[in-house]
Amino acid sequence: MLIVMTKEATAEQIQAVSDKIRELGLTPNTIPGSQRTAIGITGNQGPVPAELFEVMPGVAQAIPVSQPFKLVSREVKPEHTVVTVNGTPIGGEALAVMAGPCSVESEPQLMACARIAKQAGARLLRGGAFKPRTSPYDFQGLKEEGLKLLAQAREETGLGVVTEVMSPGTVDLVARYADMLQIGARNMQNFTLLEAVGESKRPVLLKRGLSATIKELLMAAEYIASRGNYNIVLCERGIRTFETMTRNTLDLGAVTVLKQLSHLPVIIDPSHGIGLRDGVIPLARAGVAVGADGLIVEIHPDPARALSDGPQSLTFPMFEQMMQDVRRVADAVGRRL
Amino acid sequence: MLIVMTKEATAEQIQAVSDKIRELGLTPNTIPGSQRTAIGITGNQGPVPAELFEVMPGVAQAIPVSQPFKLVSREVKPEHTVVTVNGTPIGGEALAVMAGPCSVESEPQLMACARIAKQAGARLLRGGAFKPRTSPYDFQGLKEEGLKLLAQAREETGLGVVTEVMSPGTVDLVARYADMLQIGARNMQNFTLLEAVGESKRPVLLKRGLSATIKELLMAAEYIASRGNYNIVLCERGIRTFETMTRNTLDLGAVTVLKQLSHLPVIIDPSHGIGLRDGVIPLARAGVAVGADGLIVEIHPDPARALSDGPQSLTFPMFEQMMQDVRRVADAVGRRL
Amino acid sequence: MLIVMTKEATAEQIQAVSDKIRELGLTPNTIPGSQRTAIGITGNQGPVPAELFEVMPGVAQAIPVSQPFKLVSREVKPEHTVVTVNGTPIGGEALAVMAGPCSVESEPQLMACARIAKQAGARLLRGGAFKPRTSPYDFQGLKEEGLKLLAQAREETGLGVVTEVMSPGTVDLVARYADMLQIGARNMQNFTLLEAVGESKRPVLLKRGLSATIKELLMAAEYIASRGNYNIVLCERGIRTFETMTRNTLDLGAVTVLKQLSHLPVIIDPSHGIGLRDGVIPLARAGVAVGADGLIVEIHPDPARALSDGPQSLTFPMFEQMMQDVRRVADAVGRRL
Amino acid sequence: MLIVMTKEATAEQIQAVSDKIRELGLTPNTIPGSQRTAIGITGNQGPVPAELFEVMPGVAQAIPVSQPFKLVSREVKPEHTVVTVNGTPIGGEALAVMAGPCSVESEPQLMACARIAKQAGARLLRGGAFKPRTSPYDFQGLKEEGLKLLAQAREETGLGVVTEVMSPGTVDLVARYADMLQIGARNMQNFTLLEAVGESKRPVLLKRGLSATIKELLMAAEYIASRGNYNIVLCERGIRTFETMTRNTLDLGAVTVLKQLSHLPVIIDPSHGIGLRDGVIPLARAGVAVGADGLIVEIHPDPARALSDGPQSLTFPMFEQMMQDVRRVADAVGRRL
Repeated sequence: MLIVMTKEATAEQIQAVSDKIRELGLTPNTIPGSQRTAIGITGNQGPVPAELFEVMPGVAQAIPVSQPFKLVSREVKPEHTVVTVNGTPIGGEALAVMAGPCSVESEPQLMACARIAKQAGARLLRGGAFKPRTSPYDFQGLKEEGLKLLAQAREETGLGVVTEVMSPGTVDLVARYADMLQIGARNMQNFTLLEAVGESKRPVLLKRGLSATIKELLMAAEYIASRGNYNIVLCERGIRTFETMTRNTLDLGAVTVLKQLSHLPVIIDPSHGIGLRDGVIPLARAGVAVGADGLIVEIHPDPARALSDGPQSLTFPMFEQMMQDVRRVADAVGRRL
Repeated sequence: MLIVMTKEATAEQIQAVSDKIRELGLTPNTIPGSQRTAIGITGNQGPVPAELFEVMPGVAQAIPVSQPFKLVSREVKPEHTVVTVNGTPIGGEALAVMAGPCSVESEPQLMACARIAKQAGARLLRGGAFKPRTSPYDFQGLKEEGLKLLAQAREETGLGVVTEVMSPGTVDLVARYADMLQIGARNMQNFTLLEAVGESKRPVLLKRGLSATIKELLMAAEYIASRGNYNIVLCERGIRTFETMTRNTLDLGAVTVLKQLSHLPVIIDPSHGIGLRDGVIPLARAGVAVGADGLIVEIHPDPARALSDGPQSLTFPMFEQMMQDVRRVADAVGRRL
Repeated sequence: MLIVMTKEATAEQIQAVSDKIRELGLTPNTIPGSQRTAIGITGNQGPVPAELFEVMPGVAQAIPVSQPFKLVSREVKPEHTVVTVNGTPIGGEALAVMAGPCSVESEPQLMACARIAKQAGARLLRGGAFKPRTSPYDFQGLKEEGLKLLAQAREETGLGVVTEVMSPGTVDLVARYADMLQIGARNMQNFTLLEAVGESKRPVLLKRGLSATIKELLMAAEYIASRGNYNIVLCERGIRTFETMTRNTLDLGAVTVLKQLSHLPVIIDPSHGIGLRDGVIPLARAGVAVGADGLIVEIHPDPARALSDGPQSLTFPMFEQMMQDVRRVADAVGRRL
Repeated sequence: MLIVMTKEATAEQIQAVSDKIRELGLTPNTIPGSQRTAIGITGNQGPVPAELFEVMPGVAQAIPVSQPFKLVSREVKPEHTVVTVNGTPIGGEALAVMAGPCSVESEPQLMACARIAKQAGARLLRGGAFKPRTSPYDFQGLKEEGLKLLAQAREETGLGVVTEVMSPGTVDLVARYADMLQIGARNMQNFTLLEAVGESKRPVLLKRGLSATIKELLMAAEYIASRGNYNIVLCERGIRTFETMTRNTLDLGAVTVLKQLSHLPVIIDPSHGIGLRDGVIPLARAGVAVGADGLIVEIHPDPARALSDGPQSLTFPMFEQMMQDVRRVADAVGRRL
């Protein structure tokens, strides 16, 4: 059960609802929203009678929620959510394309990527400044210097900036430069980090964990939403399976299920989804065909020399080819680039 | 190493090559082809010198093969293979759509499916007469009676018939009625069955096993090819992962890899690939967008009453919708229905 | 619901029960048992009233069965089943050890294995005569010649013979030489083969499929039992996961669950379970500690020259070490070798 | 290549080695050890000649390392590491048992657990104060209040305290109360957190991620070690597979591989490893039999009322039974409790 308060509800009215919930032996979870407060009820075994709450002053609605995720569920909000990042809407009719290098390596490398991204029709620039790497001895990113280069690229091209944040302590720093905070796959259940980006109100790109179920992905989004940040875009980026010829297995079926269960936009990452350059364009087309709201892809001026993810980065001509291919598929499914 | 003999090579010449191979301490594997014989060499640690064989009479070519699959590899045959089933080509520019019920249940049910399939543009009729079921107490199919109904539906509609064969002992029976023999996912490594359909020369639809790697799928195809039957169509139908909201995880990345590694046509099965009716159309679009050569889908006049796979069977109006959607995506990727 | 008839029940009484079931709009599944007939009821949505049947002549018991597997379930038979193979009980207090080469390669190789197996305390000899191999170009086994060598080894050592059968058509041939028919992992859902070994009445060793769930393994056993063969031993041999350092992941948790849900004996295969020689002894100890009823392990006089599975075959000294280790662990858990 | 400096090496000598490495176009990674500094060389394609460094002043040894994990590898340190926690050695002949509730819920609950743990022979008390939960609406732990109760239990019983730390910002707080910092499965690749516990020098219990490979687990340990904290205990706690009857699949094969590849102690968590109370004792026995250095198990005075992980928590009598069982198996494999 979710008790949604009116926008005008007073602190006393919210308190009264919480008290009522406790009276029933249940737990109130106050969920501070950007617009209005909602109170999730947990601890109940069976259904809770809605009429007990609907008569209370300040209560807008009492919504029975059958799913464990509440705020991100379509049950609670049937219409699509559109998240706007630096003026670019994600989740509407137009597809959002995010492109850029895996890691920000240098000014010339990043600017070359930003220009080709812009020119080919991408609206957002991706690039890692803080890099989670399996080995402590691998390149860990340029850190704040990388963030500055990203901001400079935005200045020059107008592209919005998407970059990963790896720890609660650096959320403020990253948010100072970035338009959208990416939570990487390995951090999808780093709950302290989820809460921190939930507090920040900056749009969040939440990547599915390597072995996270669809439900767990939605629960991770719920963590962010429960702190009042509803600007969440989900990203299917491939799951870990027994197959070894591809880096991951892109789960496009999950995209259709996510779009049904949740009102949040969903994009796909074909680069990590297969891990092989030659497979990225076909999977990008497939992602658009299945109904994703956008794409995030890795590009590099010289993939053979990339400091990370070289084998899956598109060359610039391949990226231009991808954008042409995707445009045609978008038309075929009633979307546009 | 693969020694390909000329079409005119005599039995003596073939024998001489085999003797030469044995002389080197290696094993010759004579592969009886429809047109000409090839001899695979196994047992070698490093490369075998081609020139030893190329000078022998009757030898057309000595091809070094780096992959464990030889006859189905693009290394051996760079051009696409087109498999023709009852006059319908699979693997060419036109997409092949196979539609029909999971199980043949009755004449009216099958005929209704066949007519709508035909009318909406499918060229092949699928339908199970012998059904592999997890439980011995579940409906096991109409068996030969089902095959007769399928043949009758072909008579009436002109659609080619695709149906599963479950054991070596029934290959001849099924081949008497069917245009294409389906090997189900659970039998992908039933090697005796693979050899039996390899002997039969009837076109084969080979479905990927639930946890089969891409390489294992190609090795299973190699079993069939090594018996002289090159009329093989591969089918990605979803693999088993940790995700429980969907029945399987459709691996569209595998389609791109298979098309690169092998010359065989590849189709997808979106019905088993997700197991949920509402996800079939989006995945069918995605499959065409990724570059599959066709689709196999389950339809039913009344899915709620289906004896098997009801939850994933399309209603007739949904199937017609799918065909419209797929047609548009096919155009966008340079294919046609 | 399972209707168990008395041993003395007449054909007419059985027929009357079946008719009654059909009257209720449900399906009777007559299950011919070695001792008495049981009739499984399927097609019911809710529970079926037991009293309708318990009053009928010839009915011993009407057992509500909540699991989809019936005859192999502990609900139906609470006491452990002991399967006897060539005089060796499997499933009692004593552990059953089966050892031998992956493939029967030659008389000296097999005899050497048989002698060491016997001497170290194994009671059954394993060895493949028909070998399912991923590649058609790999050694496929000595076939009937291999079976003859196995029979000769039994003659000489008194060990019972366990060997794989790969197709319905060779069940009779294999049963002529072997004391126990092994169904390999890739054939766990080869239902035609399951039915054939169900008819044969010879004890069956049923290996879990690479990605088979516990429930699917029990349903496969149910196929065999439903044909009247209750002499089934289950084998956990490792499942396929994302881990690549080991060949498979031995699922010892499954052993405890299987022992709870079913009355059938369960053994483990540590050789395939890890695929690395050095891990076999530790996993053998673990399997006994978890409560398995026996072990099946691969040994070879010279693993480096084995035609198959060399990397996971124990040398003879390692096998003797394993037997010593296992004996101590068996004592610690109230079993004996 | 790992350059190990002598204990007496000066800052200048260390600098000279680093300069030499850079001269070769490679990257030096200074690894501050508790005793002495080591410098890992990365960026090399082929082997680096050891003699270039062995002649330099202050260099003890130049070790070629074939594995990507260096400091935690047996190549670098062949003897077992013993980690001492509150006086209890982990990794020696004696097994270390850690027991306690999933979550610290109240003083009486925790004290009851601590007393029974102590009495039955456990040496360490586990209990969650900060709880990572899939849902933001679930009980999140008593936080600092829970830590205080744990410290109080140590006071009373003498047991060392093991508890989870979820974020870099709380490492100091948790380390103030706990003897050992646990990194949970979901945080195994939370690299910022790994670095923070690496700085803290407090012993670390590092749990394997739900879909982490053996190599990734060792690389995560390498992150901690590379910050100078070598007091690391690895924990196999079950991986995520397709099986749904059990919560996870305990990978005991991984324990044998980890013991071979690394000098670090390895314990198992049978509670999470199966998720079912009835399976915990058998898996605890198996873990000891396979060669684990200890166990971590969940116990609760009244599992049915536990705020988390009730279904997998042992009752007190079951825990006492487990300790008896484990003692016998330990004897059988040359260990003791």
